[in-house]
Amino acid sequence: MPALSPRPALEDNALATVLSALKPMLGDRLSTSPALREQHGQDASFLPPYPPDAVAFPESASEVANIVALCHDHGVPVIAFGTGTSCEGHVAALCGGICLDMSCMDTIGPVSTTDMTCVVQPGVTRKKLNAHLRDCGLFFPVDPGADASIGGMISTRASGTTAVRYGTMKDHVVSLDVILADGTHLRTSSSARKSSAGYNLTQLLVGAEGTLGIIVSATLRLHPIPEAVETQLMTFSSHTDAIDCAIEIMSAGIPVARIEYLDDVQVRAIEAHSDLGLTLGDTLIVECSGDPGTVSRQTAWIAEIAAGHAPLHVETACRTEDRARIWQARHDAWWAAIALRPGAKGIPTDSCVPVSRLAEAIALAKQDCAELDLTAPICGHVGDGNFHLCVIFDPDAPSEREKVDELIRRLSRRAIALGGTITGEHGIGYGKRAYLAEEHGAAGVRVMAAIKRALDPRNILNPGKIIEVGELPPFE
Amino acid sequence: MPALSPRPALEDNALATVLSALKPMLGDRLSTSPALREQHGQDASFLPPYPPDAVAFPESASEVANIVALCHDHGVPVIAFGTGTSCEGHVAALCGGICLDMSCMDTIGPVSTTDMTCVVQPGVTRKKLNAHLRDCGLFFPVDPGADASIGGMISTRASGTTAVRYGTMKDHVVSLDVILADGTHLRTSSSARKSSAGYNLTQLLVGAEGTLGIIVSATLRLHPIPEAVETQLMTFSSHTDAIDCAIEIMSAGIPVARIEYLDDVQVRAIEAHSDLGLTLGDTLIVECSGDPGTVSRQTAWIAEIAAGHAPLHVETACRTEDRARIWQARHDAWWAAIALRPGAKGIPTDSCVPVSRLAEAIALAKQDCAELDLTAPICGHVGDGNFHLCVIFDPDAPSEREKVDELIRRLSRRAIALGGTITGEHGIGYGKRAYLAEEHGAAGVRVMAAIKRALDPRNILNPGKIIEVGELPPFE
Repeated sequence: MPALSPRPALEDNALATVLSALKPMLGDRLSTSPALREQHGQDASFLPPYPPDAVAFPESASEVANIVALCHDHGVPVIAFGTGTSCEGHVAALCGGICLDMSCMDTIGPVSTTDMTCVVQPGVTRKKLNAHLRDCGLFFPVDPGADASIGGMISTRASGTTAVRYGTMKDHVVSLDVILADGTHLRTSSSARKSSAGYNLTQLLVGAEGTLGIIVSATLRLHPIPEAVETQLMTFSSHTDAIDCAIEIMSAGIPVARIEYLDDVQVRAIEAHSDLGLTLGDTLIVECSGDPGTVSRQTAWIAEIAAGHAPLHVETACRTEDRARIWQARHDAWWAAIALRPGAKGIPTDSCVPVSRLAEAIALAKQDCAELDLTAPICGHVGDGNFHLCVIFDPDAPSEREKVDELIRRLSRRAIALGGTITGEHGIGYGKRAYLAEEHGAAGVRVMAAIKRALDPRNILNPGKIIEVGELPPFE
Repeated sequence: MPALSPRPALEDNALATVLSALKPMLGDRLSTSPALREQHGQDASFLPPYPPDAVAFPESASEVANIVALCHDHGVPVIAFGTGTSCEGHVAALCGGICLDMSCMDTIGPVSTTDMTCVVQPGVTRKKLNAHLRDCGLFFPVDPGADASIGGMISTRASGTTAVRYGTMKDHVVSLDVILADGTHLRTSSSARKSSAGYNLTQLLVGAEGTLGIIVSATLRLHPIPEAVETQLMTFSSHTDAIDCAIEIMSAGIPVARIEYLDDVQVRAIEAHSDLGLTLGDTLIVECSGDPGTVSRQTAWIAEIAAGHAPLHVETACRTEDRARIWQARHDAWWAAIALRPGAKGIPTDSCVPVSRLAEAIALAKQDCAELDLTAPICGHVGDGNFHLCVIFDPDAPSEREKVDELIRRLSRRAIALGGTITGEHGIGYGKRAYLAEEHGAAGVRVMAAIKRALDPRNILNPGKIIEVGELPPFE
């Protein structure tokens, strides 16, 4: 568990002043109820919760601007909240303040089928967006698993199974509308597909975890729904065979839509949980999509490559129901892992290494689990070198939690040592803040702190996330 | 021509002190020769040149760090120089100072065929890189036309004909090694394909035009050389037909490798210049690449789409020599345009709009040329909504130059009005600084200035490019 700096005291009456100014503006959409505050101070992690002092439900960009400007004047923190599915304590109100629950801002604006873009408010969830888009023949591919909000996905630079083909959130944000720390409205860029007009403010905000501005609207990039989809399930007798096969598929330049890895422990857990008739062993799920002829050719090519890696089993599914059975395995992974031990909880770790180091990273992670006597099925977005351990532990046994923290420490440091990153898609929050300097070095965190200080000098936007600005000297 | 602020005087003796400290370090690799200074103060634009006070040729990152630290101590500007092929006065030493010519730092480091990455020094040109990569079966796709240096291409966020398929420089930089304003070394990120670990410092540096740091090394993303390539040349009787056809191809989700537009004026100029036997009219060049079966299917599909737009002529080329003839037309475009009028020069404009507004943007640009009595063939990376006019003018006739400036003003403002950007790939330099606030608004330039000030408080890195920091108030 990361060491925390003590919660700084808010200026006398600052909070009371802000709340009494907000009440007439928001009415019932401002609450200090303990239950609501508690719910908004905790995400999907098992990090200590920090409830905000109040929860506001803004309905428009101008309401957000007014709230932020007021909080700015009085030095009160503001924390944006999407669906609370983040994994590193992103929503914890470490210094108290006002939580902005963006769920009322969930309007989907114009969809342009020509530009393949649409404008959404931050509270729209990805499933709602895709349900809305279906009739246009378009879809939004980024899929982090949870039905997260678009604002949250942008703020953590989320990705998931489809990133290997379509890219991450960074590749799907054309432009953002943001409220800056002093309440100013910023549009980060035009709606053109590309631009060389100055610093890339869009990419500065994507992944900033609400520490540089509050997203109030996003123009997203969409893709045509592919005509045909084929899914292959392939089982191997070792993780090395599975990963080598994945690398060969990628190196061939086949534009797979997804390429997921499940280790033998994970597959055993799924089979025990869901009884899908899977062959036990290290497994790849590979999907191709596009026009039917192209997809068939690519699938055949992949089967040929797989044959060179001594597979135990290969099957190809074209029909929706057969594909659903295969993806069921992937979707059940989390719950199947937790079900391995009654009463246990699961913590998802997240690291990402160059693909060339992935087999090594996974072998060493398995060795760590053995040494620490932890059960932790592995699944991974293997085309990107990104993998997760679902670490099973007893929340009531502090010694187990310590072992989990030790595992996360080893995984984080090893990812860095292998040329990778401590987080491929979950973000830093406050859970991984301790490792940020190990990855980015003193210069990297100093640059980040300088940017944070320049744009939010009063440190009111989600303070304590990503970096602690106070510790770092400015440039001169 | 943009209004310039007067060149600020360097501190007494600051330059002399820096030069005498650099001389023993660099020897012959430091020069104050007027010819060399002049050559380094001008790029491919016709903006007024500003020669630096001296030109240095560093050979290593540590030499760059030493030079920058020294200049930082004495308040002397530092301007990085690649091949001088930028288009908006990026290399002009507006405030004097030391030009760092990076051409000696042209080593290509390790290529990983598994990760599909390689490490290069900034002075490597894209042609040299691709010659080096050929034997590995990989290539670097970004092609801005000129044989620019990788450092320069990163700094202007360059793109070109292949961006529609592979993306721009922003999509091809995995990580950068940068010397910051005070001489500190920064690595912007790990070598993983994706990361959520803090602010995206890589994307902050890509397109920063040397104003936030000097790039000393880059890890680039590569792609497998496609097995088969087919190129289609299609001629239409109006620009609307051509652009509508391009939009339909894109909307179908066909992953074209390139889709270029040449207007009727441009095609006439090429035919007059090179006599390639082209059908006159508004022309698309569309290229597909990948495995042979897939490419054939895609090419047939594209021909079907084209048939719905009343083409005057469609031809498909698979053999290298036939494809070369088609691309010859595109490559000759610039020289063919200039040859339209003996003794004339050409200025390339650059704007980019949402694809849905492209036909309108081109129609209005043609109307502007007619009103201003300017000849300006148009070519465009039409899949991205990016297009260039090659404006022909007599450099010795000031009234013509004024008309060119008026055209650029109209194109820039119209791009913004249509939801687009004043530059898709050339950058701001000092040529387009006047329009930056029109595109990004007061908040946008204020954020950019705050970042610049935070990372380069003495304003020594390519001062006066992108923004004038002095004019803008900080955040409080």
